[in-house]
Amino acid sequence: MKFSSKIEACGLSPMRKFYPYEVAAKAKGRKVLHLNIGQPDIETPQAFFQAVRDYDQPNVPYAPAPGVEVYLEAVRAYYASIGISVSCDDILATYGGSEALQVALTCILDEGDEVLIPEPFYPNYDTFVRVTGGHIRPIPTTPEEGYRFASRERIEPLINERTRAIIITNPGNPTGVVLSPEERRLMVDIAKEHGLFLISDEVYREIVYGGERPASMLEFDDAAENVVVVDSVSKRYSSTGARVGAMLSRNRELMAQAMKICQGRLCAATLDQLGSAAMYETLNEAYFASVREEYQRRRDAVVEALEKLPDVRFSCPEGAFYLMVTLPVDDTEKLQYFLLEEFEDQGETVMYAPGEGFYGTPGKGRNEIRIAYVTNPAELRRAIELLGLGIAAYNERKRG
Amino acid sequence: MKFSSKIEACGLSPMRKFYPYEVAAKAKGRKVLHLNIGQPDIETPQAFFQAVRDYDQPNVPYAPAPGVEVYLEAVRAYYASIGISVSCDDILATYGGSEALQVALTCILDEGDEVLIPEPFYPNYDTFVRVTGGHIRPIPTTPEEGYRFASRERIEPLINERTRAIIITNPGNPTGVVLSPEERRLMVDIAKEHGLFLISDEVYREIVYGGERPASMLEFDDAAENVVVVDSVSKRYSSTGARVGAMLSRNRELMAQAMKICQGRLCAATLDQLGSAAMYETLNEAYFASVREEYQRRRDAVVEALEKLPDVRFSCPEGAFYLMVTLPVDDTEKLQYFLLEEFEDQGETVMYAPGEGFYGTPGKGRNEIRIAYVTNPAELRRAIELLGLGIAAYNERKRG
Repeated sequence: MKFSSKIEACGLSPMRKFYPYEVAAKAKGRKVLHLNIGQPDIETPQAFFQAVRDYDQPNVPYAPAPGVEVYLEAVRAYYASIGISVSCDDILATYGGSEALQVALTCILDEGDEVLIPEPFYPNYDTFVRVTGGHIRPIPTTPEEGYRFASRERIEPLINERTRAIIITNPGNPTGVVLSPEERRLMVDIAKEHGLFLISDEVYREIVYGGERPASMLEFDDAAENVVVVDSVSKRYSSTGARVGAMLSRNRELMAQAMKICQGRLCAATLDQLGSAAMYETLNEAYFASVREEYQRRRDAVVEALEKLPDVRFSCPEGAFYLMVTLPVDDTEKLQYFLLEEFEDQGETVMYAPGEGFYGTPGKGRNEIRIAYVTNPAELRRAIELLGLGIAAYNERKRG
Repeated sequence: MKFSSKIEACGLSPMRKFYPYEVAAKAKGRKVLHLNIGQPDIETPQAFFQAVRDYDQPNVPYAPAPGVEVYLEAVRAYYASIGISVSCDDILATYGGSEALQVALTCILDEGDEVLIPEPFYPNYDTFVRVTGGHIRPIPTTPEEGYRFASRERIEPLINERTRAIIITNPGNPTGVVLSPEERRLMVDIAKEHGLFLISDEVYREIVYGGERPASMLEFDDAAENVVVVDSVSKRYSSTGARVGAMLSRNRELMAQAMKICQGRLCAATLDQLGSAAMYETLNEAYFASVREEYQRRRDAVVEALEKLPDVRFSCPEGAFYLMVTLPVDDTEKLQYFLLEEFEDQGETVMYAPGEGFYGTPGKGRNEIRIAYVTNPAELRRAIELLGLGIAAYNERKRG
């Protein structure tokens, strides 16, 4: 049986491909410490559980296709609280940020169309773009420049007649880069001048360490036609399994096109939307400050531990809970196999996400890894220690 | 800004396009009886709510991409209980039946590929097919033949080198047709002989009125490569807003391709999967019998009421909770506007889904409607009475 050429071109998640080796390592009695998956261990707020438990209707019916009213209103009020005025008509409830991206790209991309994305990027963007028949043209960055991408010289030469959109992740996964106000303005200007959609994935909005206020591309009223924001409760409220997100745009025609898909798939889950509404209604600045503080402790632990490792290079992350690290090895995929199959220290080893899967340009990222710092500082310090011991053992064995 | 030619070709749901007129009618104080939407009023089983309430982990994490283990195992055991052997690897948890269809079609269809679907068909199929760049070639049926479609003479002439799949809905929405064992075998044979996928949407499986056992295309072991089943808790357990479904296939390569999308969108909602697992674990034959009995009462009420209307033609539905009805009017869309804008009887009027939106062939279905019988018999009788009065008033006004 033949399959779609578009799905054939997609790959499996680089974050999950080592799973069978992890299972095998555990079967040998190894303890595996995780730096590979962005699954926060912070508690999901009680407001979510309470709203779900309090549901007292006899039936769980379809939600309206654009979303449950209280959820849309709660998202609207949240945006108002960070100084951004949107109406409920500018919001569509989606299955997490993922569906918001899928819907936006399906509305925009035809076969052969191009999307600019700074690399390294979140690998699932590649799947979402490819299934539409489009493809990613990477905006190159370098570890030496801290993966910063917002410059005309870097971006404009890549725009051609098939370019339809730019996707950015701000704060950045996997880089931890946070755009400055000037960089945000520049990205909007480039999108406007070239008639492109600017799809801004802002699911880590509150997780910023430089004292800045939470920012959104929706703050640029003059770019109403261009800006599409992807949002989610997953990271903001540590509820990744609730699968409630939003696509936001003031572009009325885009929202009308998106509604066709939303009506087609009927609705996002009703109870999860109610639970998410309750979180938005009750948890704001003070809550975000405490979560931010917790992630900052974790970031500091990781950075401090990494600084002790010889020949390891990285930039201190400004936001989200990831960073890219350049290791003194030939190939971080090979190192990962080594760590799972051969290495151990006191019965323990460590996993990360090898860098290559975050790049669109073949061959790039081979000596880089992405670290997700979502566990407690003591565990993170031990994981980085294991990484250092593993690198030494791997290079020793190669030389030997 | 330019949009994808694929999304431009999609339409809004014909079930929802009269919503603004409904709002206006209600604003005038009219009571609107609904025959238009398949939202059952039967209670969602307590097992769902109990499992969701009993969740006692501090965090709602991502589920595994293919589904929560207890949900996959519960679906497997349910299939075993109806005599069908599948392994958990043959099942992917999806956001309702809708996502199962989206995933399957994305894996199969390239730009310009064709899917055969008996018309009238569930209109959202059109959206799911179009966003892949494919299109539907309708298998024509007639009201006079009770919309039956399973014959070689009807189907084989429509197959060409771009045909990739046949989608069927069994029991049928909007027709209420239930395939006989011989018809099921024939559909499988056609798919096998022509190397096509047979995508069988079986979300109404238990709702059959002829005393037959619940059937699935998965029962044909010799068509393991061809058969894809779309399933959901929405109608089986009256929980449409839970958005938990499944894509099932023994075609390993298809499941591997589908996994790329499932990993990309991360997972279906965790709590809803746990609630759905609890329903599958505790509610089977006796529960289905009571639900079936309830719908049969409703079907009988609708059929009896329709038989009293002059010049109205229909076939008695064998399954699901829909039927197509041919009305003695020129255009059922115009009649719907009339019913909402001008007609009333004791302050009441009625809505249905006009037939044209269920056809792929332009101009067909203009004097047909789809009725969903999902409310209580008394309300259904009154709704049909209003329909009869409305038809008479509409035709009277046209003549006058």
